[in-house]
Parts: sequence; structure tokens; C-alpha cells
Amino acid sequence: MHLIIDGYGGDPGRLWDSGLVERFLDQHPSSIGMTKIAPPEVHTYRGAQPGDWGVSGFVLIAESHISIHTFPAKAYLNVDIFSCKSFDTEASIAGITEDFALSRVDTLVLERGIDHLSAEQARAEVSQRRSGLTA
Amino acid sequence: MHLIIDGYGGDPGRLWDSGLVERFLDQHPSSIGMTKIAPPEVHTYRGAQPGDWGVSGFVLIAESHISIHTFPAKAYLNVDIFSCKSFDTEASIAGITEDFALSRVDTLVLERGIDHLSAEQARAEVSQRRSGLTA
Repeated sequence: MHLIIDGYGGDPGRLWDSGLVERFLDQHPSSIGMTKIAPPEVHTYRGAQPGDWGVSGFVLIAESHISIHTFPAKAYLNVDIFSCKSFDTEASIAGITEDFALSRVDTLVLERGIDHLSAEQARAEVSQRRSGLTA
Repeated sequence: MHLIIDGYGGDPGRLWDSGLVERFLDQHPSSIGMTKIAPPEVHTYRGAQPGDWGVSGFVLIAESHISIHTFPAKAYLNVDIFSCKSFDTEASIAGITEDFALSRVDTLVLERGIDHLSAEQARAEVSQRRSGLTA
């Protein structure tokens, strides 16, 4: 199960907060029943294009991972939560929306892996939601 | 641009080869014009379910990442290559197919981010390919 999140209208201060990103990667796995197999890795990126600057982070969980990339100048972030077992996607979406004060979240859930052989068969469930600022 | 790969029928020896996984994560970014912002991180996982054992790794590149999880007992692996700029997805697919001697590869390309506002609008291009063993 792979939850893909694109979040818009986030708070730039929170999106720049590498400590917040690290806490999210450190704490979110256990909150959805997953087990980290290594500590999170978080980097602040300031490359050639200021619009691309932001915070990137990653945590490995048992045969799966969570990644996050923030783009404060665009009030945008993306998150991937990929697990070999099912989890409460709504709880993840709500938590991320609140943590980063997102005004809009687009999500996609993919079923992947040996039990879901083809991309065509994969029951991709696209949902789109708008929510008011939650913080 | 997010390339999602599920690969089947891979060589178990290669799927267990953490050195091969690390070399892939170390070298693939530059081969498709991406820049690493940290060294790859690779872990071998042996948890409660032997069927889930395998090698997991990721590398952060500028505001994006590559992840890989192998499941040698299932001859399966998955790879995500996520970049804020476009890249040659065919070259990536061919390289991974060869590196791990995959017999079947299902792929999905998603356009994500601030320039592709809704999941509905995202031109998800699903392709499915079968290839003979290449190694």
C-alpha cells in the first residue's frame, strides 16, 4: 500500500522547520503501526533555484519507507508512505494536514507488489480533498 | 515526475546483494542527470516474516529521492524514482531490469507537484511491459 500525498497552501515556517520534519519521520511510523529500522535522515536543500529550496527527509521502516520533501517558497510539500502492510491512510492524511497547516491535499493510494500483479489491476483509488486550515 | 516500478522474476542472488543495491543508488542519479545531496543508506532487513526479508535503501537527490526495496524470496523488488525535473524513464527502467535480471516490470509515471494541481488532472501514464531476461 502506497499513499501519495501532495499538499498545498502550507505554512512556510513549518515547511522550513527541519526539526518538525524530523519529528514527523521519527514519530509517524509508530502512530500507524510501523516499525523504523533506522533513524530518520533529514537534509535542508539550498540549490541553484531558490524556488526549489526546502527540507527533504526519509525514514526506512520494515521493507518500506516514508519520504517527505517541502518547498516553502511554493507552500507545497509531498509525502510518500509506502508499506507492505495496510495502514490507516486517513489518520496519516489528517496528521500531515495538521502538522504543516495545509489548505489542500491531493492523495492517491496505490496497491503494489506481488499480490497485485499488474498496474492495470492495481485498484488505484484517487481521492481529492479540500480542507480548511486545521492549525 | 515520479516513476514507480514493480519488478518481478528477479534473480534472488542479486536481490540479496546489498552492494549491488548500494552501487545502484550511488550511480543511478548521475546517470539520469540528478545530483545526490547525501550518500545512499542501505539496510538488510530480517524481520518476523522471512518472506519479507530483503534489502532496503534510499538516496536523497536535490528535492527528490530514489528508493528501493527487494524481496528475494518473492523474486520481487520495487523502486521509486522521484524528481522535480523530468528524466529518461526508459533508461531507468532498462537499467533496473538489467541490474536485477527482472523478467517482468510494471511501471507507472505520475506528474506531481505545484504545476500539476489535482490528482485528477495528473496525467498518470500507466504502462506495462514484459521483457525477456536480460542477464
